Amino acid sequence: MLFVELIRKKRDGGELSRQEIEFIVSGYSRGEIPDYQVSAFLMAALIRGLNRTETAVLTNAMLHSGKVLDFSDIPGSKVDKHSTGGVGDKTSLILAPIIAVGGVKVPMVSGRGLGHTGGTLDKLEAIPGFNVNLELGEFRRILSRVGCAMIGQTEDIAPADRMFYALRDVTGTIESPSLICASIMSKKLAEGIDGLVLDVKTGSGAFMKEARDSEFLAELMVETGERMGKKMVALITDMDQPLGRYIGNALEVVESVEVLRGHFAGSEDLVELTLELCGWMLFLGGRSANKDEGRSLALGIIESGKALEKFRDLVGEQDGDVRTIDDLTLLPQAVRVDDILAPASGFVTAIDCERMGFASVMLGGGRFKKEDAIDPAVGIVLHKKAGDAVYEGEPLCTVHYNSVERFVEAKLVIVGSYSIGGQKPQARTLIQKVIPGKSV
Amino acid sequence: MLFVELIRKKRDGGELSRQEIEFIVSGYSRGEIPDYQVSAFLMAALIRGLNRTETAVLTNAMLHSGKVLDFSDIPGSKVDKHSTGGVGDKTSLILAPIIAVGGVKVPMVSGRGLGHTGGTLDKLEAIPGFNVNLELGEFRRILSRVGCAMIGQTEDIAPADRMFYALRDVTGTIESPSLICASIMSKKLAEGIDGLVLDVKTGSGAFMKEARDSEFLAELMVETGERMGKKMVALITDMDQPLGRYIGNALEVVESVEVLRGHFAGSEDLVELTLELCGWMLFLGGRSANKDEGRSLALGIIESGKALEKFRDLVGEQDGDVRTIDDLTLLPQAVRVDDILAPASGFVTAIDCERMGFASVMLGGGRFKKEDAIDPAVGIVLHKKAGDAVYEGEPLCTVHYNSVERFVEAKLVIVGSYSIGGQKPQARTLIQKVIPGKSV
Repeated sequence: MLFVELIRKKRDGGELSRQEIEFIVSGYSRGEIPDYQVSAFLMAALIRGLNRTETAVLTNAMLHSGKVLDFSDIPGSKVDKHSTGGVGDKTSLILAPIIAVGGVKVPMVSGRGLGHTGGTLDKLEAIPGFNVNLELGEFRRILSRVGCAMIGQTEDIAPADRMFYALRDVTGTIESPSLICASIMSKKLAEGIDGLVLDVKTGSGAFMKEARDSEFLAELMVETGERMGKKMVALITDMDQPLGRYIGNALEVVESVEVLRGHFAGSEDLVELTLELCGWMLFLGGRSANKDEGRSLALGIIESGKALEKFRDLVGEQDGDVRTIDDLTLLPQAVRVDDILAPASGFVTAIDCERMGFASVMLGGGRFKKEDAIDPAVGIVLHKKAGDAVYEGEPLCTVHYNSVERFVEAKLVIVGSYSIGGQKPQARTLIQKVIPGKSV
Repeated sequence: MLFVELIRKKRDGGELSRQEIEFIVSGYSRGEIPDYQVSAFLMAALIRGLNRTETAVLTNAMLHSGKVLDFSDIPGSKVDKHSTGGVGDKTSLILAPIIAVGGVKVPMVSGRGLGHTGGTLDKLEAIPGFNVNLELGEFRRILSRVGCAMIGQTEDIAPADRMFYALRDVTGTIESPSLICASIMSKKLAEGIDGLVLDVKTGSGAFMKEARDSEFLAELMVETGERMGKKMVALITDMDQPLGRYIGNALEVVESVEVLRGHFAGSEDLVELTLELCGWMLFLGGRSANKDEGRSLALGIIESGKALEKFRDLVGEQDGDVRTIDDLTLLPQAVRVDDILAPASGFVTAIDCERMGFASVMLGGGRFKKEDAIDPAVGIVLHKKAGDAVYEGEPLCTVHYNSVERFVEAKLVIVGSYSIGGQKPQARTLIQKVIPGKSV
């Protein structure tokens, strides 16, 4: 098989066979096809598209490029959640212990932040000592004992995806629903799960700004997961402004712990989304008759204090300093704190979520390049969100920072991300659509 | 400027600025942008297209990546011809000496054969000793003394194009009119010419099978050349069957010399195209009032014997063995010669030109890969062409070969390239369209 012929076939809008797609994945994984040919192929695939069968075959080939975990010897259902990435989204930290208490195992393999979005691993690592690089044996042990465990993608899991993703990142070929689906689903299906709840973001802070594109991606992932025998549901959720009030790694741990303590004030949207996701996870895991029953169960688990206890347990098992959970001031603290004041009175009509995310990265809380180091302490605490009334000179948010230089740059971006107007804006719906799999 | 942003811009159908295009060409030439990013860009450019301004800017950037020759100190107009590549097309060998005799200089920088099409350099090198790798000083001296000179692309001429072409060749990004235009025109405009006649092939043996695509490319190249102040004309010519009767490097030298001797029998289409191209070249070079007058002039030059004399002179100056011109049997000869017989009686309704070209490559007359060595002696002499009546068992063509193994393979392809039917097919028009520049 000549690879250049496959490039030409996709370039001209042709459909690739299973054999051809497997040739691409295995050839690139083994270093037999050079980067420059694969990137031309990826661009052709992005522009011409892959159909649903091609997407499923690609996902499967990436999945089987590495180890597929098998937790069938651990009792109980295994269900995970995956989000397409947002700003201030710390739901994973909150829901994993809740679901574990609820009797469903959560073997979570997460990613790091890139661009304006944060990553679960970076947030966890804000807890001193927390180890996300567990051996698979240790991952299994903690999952079995605690009921949840949270690690990064290991060398063994979907290695082909790691290669493809690194190439896509530098060749303008990220934004393809099929390539996104194959990348996400190959990693998630390797986790040995029975069900998966997808949180597909839409709005100014999402990779997909248009609801139509988010829905297309959600349907594609649900169908791909179902083809592999998984229970699937996708939620299209609003990411037009940051989720919750805290942005930044240690700050997001703070907000997560506050929610687990039952302190919901100011974090209503975060709590709402977390409970919805929990409802679906418990339902897919067979612990409730429907989503709403699962949701009530989850709320009860928070109120009982058991979720917080489970989180403390998880942190301890993964070598994190558990004292930080009881005394949040022990988490990394920024040296300087400054308020950003409202330049006018009125209503906050919008917060440009992508800009706000970038501001956090500029402070040192995220990465522009993979190699960038992260400062866990920096970030932004929002006092005003869309719909809130504000007086001129009142604090819109508080910036936590360690470098004055970075603060000066980020401040401009933060101010620019707030829109203030005379009219209170219409409230946006947080859960915009639910796309259940056929078997759900 | 972040290159990945330019990739994304073209991917989404945006128009690139002059500065952006120059950044791409200079960045890649200097090794600052990696292959894998450029190939993704090229695929986006192929699928989304470059508009006329982008194409002209790209051509200009490639042209100025290297040396632009200046022959203004050599008296007389300089005009060249370029063909998009065909099978059996040896017009360059015939027209260069004719035009030189006619008083117009021909500084010809040619290419090698690749895929099913032949290359002028390979044909010239079939003449023992012929040197196509002249220093630019020597090229200038011969051009000045003889009136024509024929070399390969040097390191100095459009080096960016060489890099881009090599990458396009292995990434399925050849077939873009804009990229083809930039590649051809950057090399041709570096020749220091005043005018250029383009022979854009269409039909089964052409890279562009559809007349519409050939015309689009022709118009693009004419416009691009005119923007650079050159006199331009493009001919859309039929390449639905091989041109002339001889295919293969030494064999094509034989047919060229026969035409220069005034022996036109069996080579009518070749002679017709050569005279038309000569008519335009002499007209663009200011040696005739119009194309037809230039054509008559060219015919007279052949009949006078001066063109043959000029060709002998050129061969001698470029270190070729001039005795071969007077005794064609001194050219490389294949060890074996076999006829391919007609499997049925009827009319030759078509010859699949691409297949016939590949058969010649299979015999060793061309290259599948750049590194392949060429056997100058092998090839095919056609006795029957489209429209000819044939009896079962009569020779369709004669194959000259050195390897029985290769012959056995090629024979099947040759037989398959002939279509024989009961009806005499309609004759195709050789010169399908003429696209003159506005200033012509």
